[in-house]
Amino acid sequence: MKFSPLVEKLINDLQIMPGIGPKSAQRIAFYLLDHNRDGALKLGETLTEAMNNISYCPKCRSYSDGEECEICRDAGRQDSGIICVVESPADVLAIEQTGEYNGTYFVLHGHLSPIEGIGPGELGLDELARLLDTGRYHEIILATNPTVEGDTTAHYIAHMAGRRNVVATRIARGIPVGGELESIDGSTIMRSLAGRSPL
Amino acid sequence: MKFSPLVEKLINDLQIMPGIGPKSAQRIAFYLLDHNRDGALKLGETLTEAMNNISYCPKCRSYSDGEECEICRDAGRQDSGIICVVESPADVLAIEQTGEYNGTYFVLHGHLSPIEGIGPGELGLDELARLLDTGRYHEIILATNPTVEGDTTAHYIAHMAGRRNVVATRIARGIPVGGELESIDGSTIMRSLAGRSPL
Ligand SMILES: [Zn+2]
Ligand SMILES: [Zn+2]
Repeated sequence: MKFSPLVEKLINDLQIMPGIGPKSAQRIAFYLLDHNRDGALKLGETLTEAMNNISYCPKCRSYSDGEECEICRDAGRQDSGIICVVESPADVLAIEQTGEYNGTYFVLHGHLSPIEGIGPGELGLDELARLLDTGRYHEIILATNPTVEGDTTAHYIAHMAGRRNVVATRIARGIPVGGELESIDGSTIMRSLAGRSPL
Repeated sequence: MKFSPLVEKLINDLQIMPGIGPKSAQRIAFYLLDHNRDGALKLGETLTEAMNNISYCPKCRSYSDGEECEICRDAGRQDSGIICVVESPADVLAIEQTGEYNGTYFVLHGHLSPIEGIGPGELGLDELARLLDTGRYHEIILATNPTVEGDTTAHYIAHMAGRRNVVATRIARGIPVGGELESIDGSTIMRSLAGRSPL
């Protein structure tokens, strides 16, 4: 038993979204059909508009409408001479929310992963090299994730920076603020001990 | 800090889907932008096509492309003289999966709820009355959910059926097959006792 082919197609296509399996897709499809067709039509338009028009900032690869992004257009931030490399635009948001960072960013949209066929080209590292070649940066902060892939990517970029006499730093690993020692994994505790500083 | 207004709009519009909050919407938006723009464009088209073209079967109010649905076009099922009332198209799927029911359906797309402004008109009960008036049905099975609203709706329809000399039955409430008595709530156990039958 199936409903019309178009209902099946809708339930199917909804599953391209991460975290949406067949059950959730069916629930979403029925909800939209019964209670919010106008909203769903608007979402359809927005998806089309967004996929066709959102590109990467030509300087930092954050999302933008084609122009340089707000942060890259900020002369004060450009003059800081510091650039922070992150894996995802979400990381930019997370760092900006602290209000403590006043440099610029470079967004990789991933990490080096030979198995998935993601090399330096896919991460825009040629563009990053060109930025470092300008001589405008004295420090590059490597804020990729604290995972094997994130570490590998950070080391690769640190090497690029070293050849250009730019200091590469890595964000600290340790006990999260407010975390309880007894519930933290062993390798994090080891990192935290190794990175200890005088009080 | 925000990305381009179009990114914000995308994250916003994704939240019309039930179960998708700001965090999931952001994760979905970034995933689609970075990894599946083609899929997202297709989803955009499918949403538009689906919302504009999927309607209710004129007879049972299941989803259809405007025509009578597969089940309503099945002469054998029409001749059964039995119609089963459910709250949602998902319930039709659930009952069809048992393979044990050979009558037709009527889908309410909700239940009576004066607070939400859902009355008999919103549930298509005029159409149901016309179906019962044809004299082709001898039994109406009330398979609305075992909730206060589902019960109220079932009683309302049972009254409609009674005035037309159609027998109204309610699906049994009791211990789910495979359920353990000790983990079942008290009102279900009471129902199960009251509905006991000789072995
Ligand atoms: Zn930028
Ligand atoms: Zn039908």
